[in-house]
Amino acid sequence: LLSDFGLKDPYMPEIKAAILTICPEARIVDISHSIEKFNVRMGAFVLASVAPYSPAGTVHVAVVDPGVGTERRALLVQTKRAFYTGPDNGLLMLAAQKGGIIHTYAITNSEFMLPTVSSTFHGRDVFAPAAAHLLSGVSPKQFGPEISDFEVPRFAKPTRQTGRLVGEVLHVDDFGNIITNISEEDLSKARMKTGKTLAVDMKNEHLKVNLCRTYGDAAPKSVLMLVDSHGFLELAVNQGNASRRFRVNAGDTVHVSLT
Amino acid sequence: LLSDFGLKDPYMPEIKAAILTICPEARIVDISHSIEKFNVRMGAFVLASVAPYSPAGTVHVAVVDPGVGTERRALLVQTKRAFYTGPDNGLLMLAAQKGGIIHTYAITNSEFMLPTVSSTFHGRDVFAPAAAHLLSGVSPKQFGPEISDFEVPRFAKPTRQTGRLVGEVLHVDDFGNIITNISEEDLSKARMKTGKTLAVDMKNEHLKVNLCRTYGDAAPKSVLMLVDSHGFLELAVNQGNASRRFRVNAGDTVHVSLT
Amino acid sequence: LLSDFGLKDPYMPEIKAAILTICPEARIVDISHSIEKFNVRMGAFVLASVAPYSPAGTVHVAVVDPGVGTERRALLVQTKRAFYTGPDNGLLMLAAQKGGIIHTYAITNSEFMLPTVSSTFHGRDVFAPAAAHLLSGVSPKQFGPEISDFEVPRFAKPTRQTGRLVGEVLHVDDFGNIITNISEEDLSKARMKTGKTLAVDMKNEHLKVNLCRTYGDAAPKSVLMLVDSHGFLELAVNQGNASRRFRVNAGDTVHVSLT
Repeated sequence: LLSDFGLKDPYMPEIKAAILTICPEARIVDISHSIEKFNVRMGAFVLASVAPYSPAGTVHVAVVDPGVGTERRALLVQTKRAFYTGPDNGLLMLAAQKGGIIHTYAITNSEFMLPTVSSTFHGRDVFAPAAAHLLSGVSPKQFGPEISDFEVPRFAKPTRQTGRLVGEVLHVDDFGNIITNISEEDLSKARMKTGKTLAVDMKNEHLKVNLCRTYGDAAPKSVLMLVDSHGFLELAVNQGNASRRFRVNAGDTVHVSLT
Repeated sequence: LLSDFGLKDPYMPEIKAAILTICPEARIVDISHSIEKFNVRMGAFVLASVAPYSPAGTVHVAVVDPGVGTERRALLVQTKRAFYTGPDNGLLMLAAQKGGIIHTYAITNSEFMLPTVSSTFHGRDVFAPAAAHLLSGVSPKQFGPEISDFEVPRFAKPTRQTGRLVGEVLHVDDFGNIITNISEEDLSKARMKTGKTLAVDMKNEHLKVNLCRTYGDAAPKSVLMLVDSHGFLELAVNQGNASRRFRVNAGDTVHVSLT
Repeated sequence: LLSDFGLKDPYMPEIKAAILTICPEARIVDISHSIEKFNVRMGAFVLASVAPYSPAGTVHVAVVDPGVGTERRALLVQTKRAFYTGPDNGLLMLAAQKGGIIHTYAITNSEFMLPTVSSTFHGRDVFAPAAAHLLSGVSPKQFGPEISDFEVPRFAKPTRQTGRLVGEVLHVDDFGNIITNISEEDLSKARMKTGKTLAVDMKNEHLKVNLCRTYGDAAPKSVLMLVDSHGFLELAVNQGNASRRFRVNAGDTVHVSLT
């Protein structure tokens, strides 16, 4: 389960209650309910990070849904190892495309929804019941027609210019680590290897930073870069908070070059 | 499980550990542990919202308990579909009354408490063990004497005056949506239907707002009203935060009339 | 599971996903993921508070790990009733020593790690898989060599001086209650009994406070002391926040004497 519902309200436990009523044997695992409100991109990033580690057969229910109750469709996506239910706004598709999409269905069959469907809470009334019925053995094609014109989230790819990589900030984590969209492979093609010093330009900051293997390779409170545990270039402060120091947000541009 | 314990301290996991020690097969689901400290009314509202969606036979353990260790009693309530354990301060009763109370017991039998009962943490020492023993098959009447003079929470009912409804704010959710105690039925009796424009007075605010079906019916960042997923009139900002814009809190008075 | 990962990022659900992939029957219970970043001492305190209430055979996975990827070892500790996996920085040892350590192993056998071990996220790649394999029946000694030179956390013991106890603040909980390292036994030896008035010196505060049995023994918003649910002397404000009123933090010195 992933959402932007926060942790104080009844919304997420209502989803869990709806699932367990339909499928009492369901094993429920929270991914995060602290996705920034309406931030589909952040939700897609977090879901795609966790999905590869999930057991085969996992049904992911994701709800960051500013268009609830409008014309946007409800989706059920089947990939090689997993299922996804949620709104058709790109939220599911970063993870699903990485996992290899087999079928995508629009959920329209009211037999697999709660008896009364509100116009503001499809997480409880549509997505969660679909997931629970799927876990109970209902075949994916029973939920509605197959479609192919679903929304896909737009995430910038880094570009390579003479002598430098131009990327952007993908996510700022709870430690303040600044995660970019520059992958280990991008770095390797640009000959930026662990041990080298990189020149980094972001906003008004011009930094020279060592590309390290881990946080503890830098002195406490000093700045470093490393390849993070998902394979992306990350700017961090050992035992400190890089985001607070450099005031960088998701979406900001980052230039990296060899020194 | 519902509480005002927050998420950083050992209190809630101690409750879970106590339950699983007594009843290893228990399925534990968190409702919320971010209820405002000592806010019995908010706890009662959140519990009553989730309870109708819970599977039959659920045992709810709720702890918002400023009177712990004083003369206030510990309760076990049996309704048509569920059980509730918690303090006798009204916290359980909004949900339990909606669910149809069959029996209410004062928990006094120390056989079903932890061996040492602290004076400050009955969640772990009294309510959780009672719930776990109940799940393990102990009969409700074994926990203590039946009582009928329990506390009930006082929630204002909206009143209808010439041409307008006078209600109050029941809850402000994590999105900043302002949920009132005015129900779909109240609106319908006052002929306030989706599509109409309502005049809303709260504090120093005088607003004219459309009664919509869902958030996306209003332009992004503009104000709307709708009937929320629990059947209550809600003031919201599409993809924004109404509570921050209007500085309204739970308990504030709201006047609504047709324009 | 205990960590300083917070609740918005993919890190903790990746740990859960890794566990359930290896051991689908694992029952996962969160202790806290809101430990202050890099605060090993707070993590050790919270883990040690919960551990005694956990069912026999529990495997605790704890990750507050500023030294990840450096020379610090990964540990598997076996106590009389439980197992612990986590970094060798003292985090596990307050709980483990209380529980009676039988064996401590350095986790070195890559057979029980994820296929690719990152240098920044051993929670997912080393500690969680070890816990899951342990739950699946792998013998503790298969994980690596037994060791005895592990790190232990340093927590001050209170001292007794003429007529007073000198302790320190162990933890400030989410209610703002100030928990000291002065135990019920220390109080009893110093003849400080419930009902007496104590003189308390912290920072620039000189207070006279009643030693009560529970919060409700003091008037709302007034200051009290009591023995908390783990047996430590605590300074609190009934239905208020003592930490905010007195601006005291973990580590601060507290002097207590009879009046």
